[in-house]
Amino acid sequence: MNFLLDIIVILVLAKIFADISERLGFPGLIGGVLAGILTGPVLGIVDISNIQHFGEIGLILLLFLAGFEVDTEKLLEQKFACTTTSILASLIPFLAGFFTGRLLDFSFVTSLFLGTAMVATSISISLETFIEKNKLNTKLGRMVLGSAVLDDIISLLVVAFVVSFGKTGAFSFASVGEILLGLFIFALIFFLGVWLFPKLIKSSNFLKVEEAQFSLVIVLIILLSLVSDNLGLSTVLGAFIAGIILSKVPSLETESFVEKINVISEGFFIPFFFGWVGLQIVLERNIFTWTSLIIVAVAVLAKIIPAFFSGKLSKLSSKDSWGLGFGMVPRGEVTLVVAVLGKEIGAISDALFGSLFLLILASILITPLFLGPILNDPKPTKKSTA
Amino acid sequence: MNFLLDIIVILVLAKIFADISERLGFPGLIGGVLAGILTGPVLGIVDISNIQHFGEIGLILLLFLAGFEVDTEKLLEQKFACTTTSILASLIPFLAGFFTGRLLDFSFVTSLFLGTAMVATSISISLETFIEKNKLNTKLGRMVLGSAVLDDIISLLVVAFVVSFGKTGAFSFASVGEILLGLFIFALIFFLGVWLFPKLIKSSNFLKVEEAQFSLVIVLIILLSLVSDNLGLSTVLGAFIAGIILSKVPSLETESFVEKINVISEGFFIPFFFGWVGLQIVLERNIFTWTSLIIVAVAVLAKIIPAFFSGKLSKLSSKDSWGLGFGMVPRGEVTLVVAVLGKEIGAISDALFGSLFLLILASILITPLFLGPILNDPKPTKKSTA
Repeated sequence: MNFLLDIIVILVLAKIFADISERLGFPGLIGGVLAGILTGPVLGIVDISNIQHFGEIGLILLLFLAGFEVDTEKLLEQKFACTTTSILASLIPFLAGFFTGRLLDFSFVTSLFLGTAMVATSISISLETFIEKNKLNTKLGRMVLGSAVLDDIISLLVVAFVVSFGKTGAFSFASVGEILLGLFIFALIFFLGVWLFPKLIKSSNFLKVEEAQFSLVIVLIILLSLVSDNLGLSTVLGAFIAGIILSKVPSLETESFVEKINVISEGFFIPFFFGWVGLQIVLERNIFTWTSLIIVAVAVLAKIIPAFFSGKLSKLSSKDSWGLGFGMVPRGEVTLVVAVLGKEIGAISDALFGSLFLLILASILITPLFLGPILNDPKPTKKSTA
Repeated sequence: MNFLLDIIVILVLAKIFADISERLGFPGLIGGVLAGILTGPVLGIVDISNIQHFGEIGLILLLFLAGFEVDTEKLLEQKFACTTTSILASLIPFLAGFFTGRLLDFSFVTSLFLGTAMVATSISISLETFIEKNKLNTKLGRMVLGSAVLDDIISLLVVAFVVSFGKTGAFSFASVGEILLGLFIFALIFFLGVWLFPKLIKSSNFLKVEEAQFSLVIVLIILLSLVSDNLGLSTVLGAFIAGIILSKVPSLETESFVEKINVISEGFFIPFFFGWVGLQIVLERNIFTWTSLIIVAVAVLAKIIPAFFSGKLSKLSSKDSWGLGFGMVPRGEVTLVVAVLGKEIGAISDALFGSLFLLILASILITPLFLGPILNDPKPTKKSTA
């Protein structure tokens, strides 16, 4: 029964801290993360295993909402801008990480892993900031979203490539091929979904049971996340694509459905995702070494600078270009996976593991602190509200 | 990640089976139970621990909805009818169980435990049937609800009394006193809630975060369930009382709130409660003994007959009196607790444990099968739609 207590402690603290955070001009999601940090690493009163399942569903719903709410046609109009940003903002962090490693006297393989760990943007933190500020459907919002999704795919390829090299000592295209095959299959499933989902949702109206349509929507979202995960892609990509597909279904374009999905997401599951992020943070003093600080600085700047210039190239205002820069900063699960895999095969030492952990922690906290105020502008520039 | 698969398997099967069940004239909740039986005991593809937390929240929301939707004033008008029904329908099963035990040559203590195991009605099954058929706010619906809640309190007292006797060999009033004290404290908390909850909910509107009010409502419901549980009462009672208190809060009397709480309950959590019930069922051939069948028959008739007469006394139609009778039949968690405690102290043998388990299984399936059609009447009698 104790899990119920954990549930309400996280929910109450997340909402109260979110309120304080928003009053200070920062995004509310910081509230959830702080609730997690306070009750887990600091006080140790909440058991992470009681929150995890709710948090995972929260992450899926967050990405679903992004796909559901984004204006897909306008997103596609910006595909070149997004592609440029994602390539620049993954290639440059990789190179920066690799050469920083070499300069710090790390081995070739370790440097490769360090570069790889810097590649992937973790979209959830930026995304929730945009959703909260109601700025997802601006040119900037779509650029961050589109770039981060493409960046996710690029990073999967880089990780597959480097990890197989780390393990075998030779570059192999087999694991990269697997991911490309996964992407191809997922593309087929996307078209199947576009054709099938509206029919399924329509037929759910014939079921004589309460809320059958809503349950079906939840099932389809989770199903696509699972399929994407099983194809070697990420749950996040599947949930996002589910949002795009379902946003085209006429019977879901009602205010009532949006209200329903919002209440179950923002009112229940999503706070647990950010709480879960906070609960995973391990507070250790010895990670604040010079090496760590250099790595964090390089990783942050290597995202901000190329994304800023890519924003300028795409004719964003300077302010919005900074927004794009900070929007690409967060690192999360992929960095952690690289760190864990690298540690397993001996390419990443305990100290470097700590540095990468600090990178995740710092980027999660830096992003909303800077991105929030950038999006706060009471009179948004014409360019950003396309 | 596998828990996500379990989630969608249960949700899909529960809704499909519910539809079939409703088309055959039975309540949809049978769908959830069958989904649980099929995926757990039969096929073994769903891990119960992945469903349990969702199921527990489902049970709490179900009882909350009952308290929230019932017309409290009319419920209070029927307090004498409910009291009579609950006393008759708990005293007679106790005596019937005790004497059946003696006739079957069980010891005095074993017979006491058998009687106790027959006392408590498990309200959830009947309740969902009434909610689904939209018959909660009829005279019959309120009588079943009120009687089952009172019956819950009586059974707590009987269990405390008999279990302490079984353990110590002497009747002790200490454990009964603890429950009475718990009830007294909970009554104080009820009045505190009536005063405080509306203020809290009003103040939640000042929070600058999305869906803060909805999150707060969820928190208050779970909080009261936890408090009730910790006072030695049941979670079920706390959730029901939370529903009654919150139904008096003006800002929650909107269609929008009802839609929100419905979608998170019927569209997500409640199916997991019934699925969880099904998953807990252990299918064994050797429980179908003559002793088992006698015990099940006695337990079922000892609820139906007194409740039927109590219904007649309260001027229900014959049909509705049968409805009251069948509405009081389900046994659940209290019977299981008595069985487990009795087994621990040696008062209940493995064979008798199996019989009590069969009782739970049979009563869960019998109730909706009979109650559903009784409530199905296309033209409800005047008496029942007060």
